[in-house]
Amino acid sequence: MIVSGQHADLLIFNGTVLTMNLDNEKIENGAVAVSGDKIAAIGKADFFSTWKIYRAVDAKGGIIMPGLVNTHTHAAMTCFRGMADDMPLMTWLHEYIFPAEACMDESRVFSGSLLACAEMILSGTTCFCDMYLFEDGTASAACMAGMRAVVGEVLYDFPSPNYGNLENGFIYTQELINKWKDNDLITIAVEPHSPYLCSPKLLQRASEMAQKYSLPLVIHVSETENEAAQIRQKYGSSPVEHLAELGVLAPNLLACHCVALSDNDISLLKQYDIKVSHNPESNMKLASGIAPVPKLIDAGICVGLGTDGCSSNNNLDLLSEMDMTAKLHKVNTLDPAIMNARTVLRMATIEGARALGMDSITGSLEPGKHADIIIVDTSSPHMTPMYNPESHLVYSARAGDIITTIINGNVVMENRQILTFDVEKAMADVNAFARTLNAVS
Amino acid sequence: MIVSGQHADLLIFNGTVLTMNLDNEKIENGAVAVSGDKIAAIGKADFFSTWKIYRAVDAKGGIIMPGLVNTHTHAAMTCFRGMADDMPLMTWLHEYIFPAEACMDESRVFSGSLLACAEMILSGTTCFCDMYLFEDGTASAACMAGMRAVVGEVLYDFPSPNYGNLENGFIYTQELINKWKDNDLITIAVEPHSPYLCSPKLLQRASEMAQKYSLPLVIHVSETENEAAQIRQKYGSSPVEHLAELGVLAPNLLACHCVALSDNDISLLKQYDIKVSHNPESNMKLASGIAPVPKLIDAGICVGLGTDGCSSNNNLDLLSEMDMTAKLHKVNTLDPAIMNARTVLRMATIEGARALGMDSITGSLEPGKHADIIIVDTSSPHMTPMYNPESHLVYSARAGDIITTIINGNVVMENRQILTFDVEKAMADVNAFARTLNAVS
Repeated sequence: MIVSGQHADLLIFNGTVLTMNLDNEKIENGAVAVSGDKIAAIGKADFFSTWKIYRAVDAKGGIIMPGLVNTHTHAAMTCFRGMADDMPLMTWLHEYIFPAEACMDESRVFSGSLLACAEMILSGTTCFCDMYLFEDGTASAACMAGMRAVVGEVLYDFPSPNYGNLENGFIYTQELINKWKDNDLITIAVEPHSPYLCSPKLLQRASEMAQKYSLPLVIHVSETENEAAQIRQKYGSSPVEHLAELGVLAPNLLACHCVALSDNDISLLKQYDIKVSHNPESNMKLASGIAPVPKLIDAGICVGLGTDGCSSNNNLDLLSEMDMTAKLHKVNTLDPAIMNARTVLRMATIEGARALGMDSITGSLEPGKHADIIIVDTSSPHMTPMYNPESHLVYSARAGDIITTIINGNVVMENRQILTFDVEKAMADVNAFARTLNAVS
Repeated sequence: MIVSGQHADLLIFNGTVLTMNLDNEKIENGAVAVSGDKIAAIGKADFFSTWKIYRAVDAKGGIIMPGLVNTHTHAAMTCFRGMADDMPLMTWLHEYIFPAEACMDESRVFSGSLLACAEMILSGTTCFCDMYLFEDGTASAACMAGMRAVVGEVLYDFPSPNYGNLENGFIYTQELINKWKDNDLITIAVEPHSPYLCSPKLLQRASEMAQKYSLPLVIHVSETENEAAQIRQKYGSSPVEHLAELGVLAPNLLACHCVALSDNDISLLKQYDIKVSHNPESNMKLASGIAPVPKLIDAGICVGLGTDGCSSNNNLDLLSEMDMTAKLHKVNTLDPAIMNARTVLRMATIEGARALGMDSITGSLEPGKHADIIIVDTSSPHMTPMYNPESHLVYSARAGDIITTIINGNVVMENRQILTFDVEKAMADVNAFARTLNAVS
């Protein structure tokens, strides 16, 4: 079917298109046309032969696919990458992370977040969900980088290095909502830290605020068995049951980690259509445990992938996270078929978008959706031969294979070069900050 | 201390030198001088200011370290990378791998091994230990690529696609020994497949042959609980006990996998100074289980890292294997301090060399050792900032960060370009073979 007289601002051609749509449709020798910030059409290359094209991007025989969605990170923690590893959680937190975070300010959060955006764009992530301090700095960095982001100031009962007492935290969040409400790329979320650092009142108020503005509510839940035991001792319920009793379980809730879950917790997550962010590398490195992801998926719960912050991973690389996810659950269940490459790839794309309430906007390549697209080079030795692109993306590909990243119709990286901001300056700024901090070496 | 009148063929300068020697000595702004195939001296950059240098290689502020040692792979299985995943072991083996292997010949093993060498050189591996069919092809490929390799023809009781009946397997191994005995890079090993595919007589004869020529004896041991149960049913002993009873446990034995081990097995491995190759990604992907590596290390047993073949990983990337090793054992023991970055880095370098009986030759940077050296770029966003090089190598670095690989004093890769052979031809040859095989997609 040839349509005459059509035109596009951008045509990405000469690649295998993985749409990640409901049917996981794959188009060999395919192309994707972009008009403005949206996908105009997808088809075989010759479908576009009569189109007027303003700019063409050659995928060079690689894979054209939706950008990856990182459902949980603390972007500015790039500043603390590798500062302290391989130690008990409380030593790590109290001797290294908390003292370092006390030195944070909005300018450092901006630089750290910009560095995070560089790493994410270069590893194929087009959208991320962030929780941290001074989040106006993170929103500004994502905006400058041209990244899609869900951003929220972390709320807890003790004084914050940013806003001081909790009341100001809600004011700060309200200001974020007001400031960014008309931005194409930035969505503000309400983000109470966790049931163990937030009072019932805080949790309910955060939930009401999120409901009032139809925003995501993002929270850490059941990251460790210790945490679950602590909540059970305090409230007589598991963390998920506690949230249910407070009336904050709703489809806009994104529960990060979810390592320590009972069968009843899983039923509640399903009942209220809660979204889960799975962060295997962080859970492994901090020795938190293994989330029961196959059970969650069997129950029909939406699970996206997240890298968590750079101090507990120590990177923001979703390709590595996919590989880890598939392998971890196989060995944990002793079943090599428990989780296949396609399932993991969907977690890192369309399921991640769904987890953020953005599946109508991003996460798959479909006409009318926003153009968040990456090109993966498949010509190098470690990608040769290729029987199955989905297998290669999960088990063989590395971040360096991403050669082009397009967000909202804008080419933000091409041939491994970031086009939207000065990466060298972001690195220099973070390096200057890092030199002032104590190091473990 | 300045020494006048010294000279070197090669000086690698302007980097942080990680020697991986006994003291894990680190030299900031260091340099390594190479004369012929050996390391002549290591020191601060200004130590070499009066030296005559034939060729200088700028490490550009990165890390200068020993090349990585892959203690277990099946190089030619690059041909089957991603052909079949996510399925039960027996389906995978009988419906995909065995039929594909029946199509192998020496020329295809050569091409697949050459492709493997490209991937390994580009990811910082300078030495590998291989077990497969038509291993003269693998030895020839390693030799052409300029890689150090331990190579052995797999021996088992059923007919081989290469040599036919077992008697010819011993003849083929003898021919390998004769052909390669004076080669600087290639060491031949005797390689019975495993206790479950080899009769007691085969195992004893292989061990005697290895002892006679002072060669490594390489074997798969206790890869799964199923296999251990099968051996116990047949012989009334665990696989390790069975090997002890046959008299084949000796310091030249490299036992690959070692997932299913009893405390008595661990005592025997220690008693006989057996070397272990740990292959976490393969063990995870095939859902084999988790080797008790922290216990082995506590017992004082030498443990190196291996990728296993590309059909069960699906890459030959030791940087990824290091990250997986550290994280897997933390989550498995719920102890974030159980295995630190330095321990894992030593497994991938000097302990790997020791596992192959090559620790006097390679695995660390020390004067008099062969010059097997890599340079790791640290200037990209995902390596910024850097508090601790060892942490970054294990938790943040990716294969693409390796910018130069030197083996036996020869620069085999520089600026991501392989200098020793035609990589495009190796890829084209493997792609041509792959098109003839059935694919799962």
